[in-house]
Amino acid sequence: MLIALDAMGGDHAPAAVVAGALLARRELGIEVALVGPRELVEAELRRDGPTPAGIEVVHASEAVAMDERPAQAVRAKRDASINVAMGLVKRGLADACVSAGNTGGVMASALMTLGRVPGIERPAIGTLAPFTERGILVLDVGANADVKPGYLVQFAQMGSVYAERVLGIANPRVALLNIGAEDTKGSELAQEAFARISRSGVNFVGNIEGGDVHRGRADVVVTDGFTGNVAVKVTEGVADFIFRELRATIYSRLRYKIAAAVLRPALIAMRERMDPGTYGGVPLLGVNGVVTIAHGNADPRTIRNALRAARDAASSGMLDTIRGVSGRKVS
Amino acid sequence: MLIALDAMGGDHAPAAVVAGALLARRELGIEVALVGPRELVEAELRRDGPTPAGIEVVHASEAVAMDERPAQAVRAKRDASINVAMGLVKRGLADACVSAGNTGGVMASALMTLGRVPGIERPAIGTLAPFTERGILVLDVGANADVKPGYLVQFAQMGSVYAERVLGIANPRVALLNIGAEDTKGSELAQEAFARISRSGVNFVGNIEGGDVHRGRADVVVTDGFTGNVAVKVTEGVADFIFRELRATIYSRLRYKIAAAVLRPALIAMRERMDPGTYGGVPLLGVNGVVTIAHGNADPRTIRNALRAARDAASSGMLDTIRGVSGRKVS
Repeated sequence: MLIALDAMGGDHAPAAVVAGALLARRELGIEVALVGPRELVEAELRRDGPTPAGIEVVHASEAVAMDERPAQAVRAKRDASINVAMGLVKRGLADACVSAGNTGGVMASALMTLGRVPGIERPAIGTLAPFTERGILVLDVGANADVKPGYLVQFAQMGSVYAERVLGIANPRVALLNIGAEDTKGSELAQEAFARISRSGVNFVGNIEGGDVHRGRADVVVTDGFTGNVAVKVTEGVADFIFRELRATIYSRLRYKIAAAVLRPALIAMRERMDPGTYGGVPLLGVNGVVTIAHGNADPRTIRNALRAARDAASSGMLDTIRGVSGRKVS
Repeated sequence: MLIALDAMGGDHAPAAVVAGALLARRELGIEVALVGPRELVEAELRRDGPTPAGIEVVHASEAVAMDERPAQAVRAKRDASINVAMGLVKRGLADACVSAGNTGGVMASALMTLGRVPGIERPAIGTLAPFTERGILVLDVGANADVKPGYLVQFAQMGSVYAERVLGIANPRVALLNIGAEDTKGSELAQEAFARISRSGVNFVGNIEGGDVHRGRADVVVTDGFTGNVAVKVTEGVADFIFRELRATIYSRLRYKIAAAVLRPALIAMRERMDPGTYGGVPLLGVNGVVTIAHGNADPRTIRNALRAARDAASSGMLDTIRGVSGRKVS
């Protein structure tokens, strides 16, 4: 098992990415191919001392810069690190690809290099909402701003496969994000998707409202990429707001500060649980290879966790299952 | 100034509604017409002792039951309390209407009895996200699951008027909820709305992402009723989740419990701030009268606060301003 890691992706690349690869190798035994300009990557590796076995460098002459339009850049720069990393997966030299680069760029590169799983109309980005121990898989959270009901049916199927094979949830419960619990609620899109997901073969438990996702009534929450993106970012924003306000409150009085010192380990544990970096990476489903997208401001720990998520996905066989599901006719 | 209050609306009606009216009268000096079956409402009032001046009962023979389809029920039951309350506003006998009844029912009743402001295509429900002292006005949060770009332009205009006239924010900053900050991001709907809001005369500050709403960069956030509903409910759900987890953590160890006792006033203040009942009621904008919708599980304090919100809206002149704006041509 070898994971191709885009050394040039993310706000703190290549330093944080290289450090994350070393963490994953040492702590989790994951073998990593660091893809990027060889001299640059090797210089980063040397800071750490002798490079351990199981970490290799694959040369790519270019990188997508922060100020480029990512989707255009990956098409223009054939030798960009993200494209070379995807190419390793395409050629069967790596089992999965991880990047903390711009999501649009990773998606464009995956579609260009790996293509879609035959039968899948659109890929979807899944994320794990941090409300249960395993997380609740929400998809799509940004690959498709405009969708058709049929896409949502395939998101339900792919999400169900991921939850079962990668997260280890037997017969995962799939719900449709909607603005009411009753069958007939919601937008035209949601109503049509409801009817079709009901017939799709997944364990469909019906509609779920935004305020109920955290209650764990469903393992997989299906939505369009616009609503899903807003929902996931609001979740991060609200958590950020509450913890920031808590901190401000605590530092406003000495006696609060003392009490908070006692509570500190508990507060840190909670904050960490709500931190997207804890899961590390989110899956790009529907492309013909295992691809994990890490948060853009990934630190080494986040990269390590994204590599773990990619390894778990690659070893789960979920891609073969999605290939099987996508061949099934759904009306 | 007299506010018509639907005594039969909400999970705890009529007891909590009547108690809320009495609170608003005593603490804020608001005059209230309680609308519902006279005997029932008067029996509730008698529990409290002699009814103070400024609280009157207006008889309505029916109420919309919890198990009815609300929109159909308000059309079938002409003498339902919500319809009679709206009728008081229509006839100029009351200055605003408040109800904690089902949102769909309140909206149907308002459209049937008051109609839309001439020129306004669709009403919108606004809510105040609790991230700043005055709150950030988000609209629409559920009146329209499917929208056209032109509706969003009018939501921007109505939201701007409400923020300026009722919340007292000079030249309020209006943003469009979207899945990226750049002008060209988002769904087809969002891109078209962006272009048209830019030309609408409001103080448009561009796109805002779900994770940035809490940062207070905009006073008014415009979106369709599907996305807005999900965003607002996710906000409530995440706050609920975090405070519930905090409580569970605190009670898991004796030393945490002791520390938490010190922090308790600060935690309660924060929880209260995040509680939708603090604002009490949300405006239904675009109908031809001042209508405030209170949370369905409103307690007396929430009803009091909703009556205050209705009074502030009615005395602000915002309805006349919306009537003026809606006549303006926006392309």
